[in-house]
Amino acid sequence: MTHNLAFGGSPLDRASARRADPAWLAAQRAQCLALPLWQDRVLMADDKATFLPWRADWDVHLTVFLGLEGSQPLFAVDLPGEQEPVFDGAAFVEMRPAAAILSARDCAIAGQAKAMIDWHHRHGFCANCGAVTSALDGGYRRHCAACSADHFPRTDPVVIMLPLLDDHCLLGRNARFANGLHSAFAGFIEPGETVEDAVARELEEEAGLRIGAVRYHASQPWPFPSSLMIGCHVDALSRDFTVDGAEIAEARWMSRAEARARLAGELDDGVRMPSPIAIAYHLIRDWVEAP
Amino acid sequence: MTHNLAFGGSPLDRASARRADPAWLAAQRAQCLALPLWQDRVLMADDKATFLPWRADWDVHLTVFLGLEGSQPLFAVDLPGEQEPVFDGAAFVEMRPAAAILSARDCAIAGQAKAMIDWHHRHGFCANCGAVTSALDGGYRRHCAACSADHFPRTDPVVIMLPLLDDHCLLGRNARFANGLHSAFAGFIEPGETVEDAVARELEEEAGLRIGAVRYHASQPWPFPSSLMIGCHVDALSRDFTVDGAEIAEARWMSRAEARARLAGELDDGVRMPSPIAIAYHLIRDWVEAP
Repeated sequence: MTHNLAFGGSPLDRASARRADPAWLAAQRAQCLALPLWQDRVLMADDKATFLPWRADWDVHLTVFLGLEGSQPLFAVDLPGEQEPVFDGAAFVEMRPAAAILSARDCAIAGQAKAMIDWHHRHGFCANCGAVTSALDGGYRRHCAACSADHFPRTDPVVIMLPLLDDHCLLGRNARFANGLHSAFAGFIEPGETVEDAVARELEEEAGLRIGAVRYHASQPWPFPSSLMIGCHVDALSRDFTVDGAEIAEARWMSRAEARARLAGELDDGVRMPSPIAIAYHLIRDWVEAP
Repeated sequence: MTHNLAFGGSPLDRASARRADPAWLAAQRAQCLALPLWQDRVLMADDKATFLPWRADWDVHLTVFLGLEGSQPLFAVDLPGEQEPVFDGAAFVEMRPAAAILSARDCAIAGQAKAMIDWHHRHGFCANCGAVTSALDGGYRRHCAACSADHFPRTDPVVIMLPLLDDHCLLGRNARFANGLHSAFAGFIEPGETVEDAVARELEEEAGLRIGAVRYHASQPWPFPSSLMIGCHVDALSRDFTVDGAEIAEARWMSRAEARARLAGELDDGVRMPSPIAIAYHLIRDWVEAP
């Protein structure tokens, strides 16, 4: 099943074994096309991600090997500075608006680049001993020379779930969403939890909801900054809920017909639905459209 | 569906909102039962995890709030030192052998304790600036006073998958497994990948296998040190495979009848199957027993 979720489905070969070879990696970079990022924004022109031949003055910048597209190596380069670097006919675009217009291929590659570079920005030091670490393996490892610890890119698994009962789904409005956005419920999986444990805990905490079966639906890498969204449909055991008032400000059961109309933009009363780039949209849409 | 996987299904209420309140937390600890750990081992007596009333001399040690069981607060305490601390009638047991004999409740709680304490051991410094961090929120946050960064327990999502074709499953022998153990294939999910992307990449890398549909089956927290195992059944498109020779030393297609006999211990030829504490065992057993 292909869900066409933004940021997933990259066509690149990550060459995981070969990227650990510095000589191979240097040869790839010499002939690569590189995607420039600046302040977590991606270089775009004409609704496309902009890949450029490697420039010698980029050698000093943070660089990540993205993978091979056929035989063409692709890299990302992080350009520093407070002033936006200037490229003729192109501009740096924030990742969320970019995701809404990029092709699936460009979106997956740009999201990978953003997640990897962002990780390096926030992990320059060894969590085990505090020393400065250095990037290796095309950016997929940071090594601490002081204590020999290796550190790998962090991916935080998050459950995101749509409770279902009697042809209705339950959507919540996060207290941080000011614009009427109603969406699926979500939360980070903690140590010692299965996906199903975390779904039950989060729905109990946020909505006081008792649940039955949990059905995995799809997953999505979400580079804000480093989540793996694990999307589930959930059978609610009762329509009763009590929002926590802290994280979730309000919630409402929505019939399939109402959800369908809202996704189609046919109701204009201040209740907004998730963007198609978010897995929450797909959890709702795929339920609405299910036979 | 309850899979009865080791380390999952904890009965505790983690009280995520309240544990951020230091006064509430102190009151809980005063009346808690605490599970001692030493060098990642759990205190056991009579095949049970040993919970003890709090002792004043533990106040200086690393402590984690595990949750509420009814109204009874449970904590874990990490005892330092090279010499095993002595408790009458009890001993510290490594987590894997412990998991094979503990009840589901004890195993889930001990695994949570081990994962959390192990995370603190390896994350005493700020990855963002290198300063010493301090534990807050009952152990679920480390804060850096120098740069204000907050750090949360790390959970690494891992795909683990059983390829299926024509009533056979494909099992691989990891080059690190010396004792004939054949198991499911597995690997860490990287930034920019969905579960399904990672399954396809790992099977291509490790076994040269082309695949079709990926079906999520179950998940398991695996505290060695901090994985979330995401278990899938996968349709292979061909019986052809080529092991990489590095991570996977050999692989073999196994009929349902053969897999059933091996799980039952009815074949003794040096090929071993995964332990029931591992999700790989459940991926194989649940496929073998499926109608």
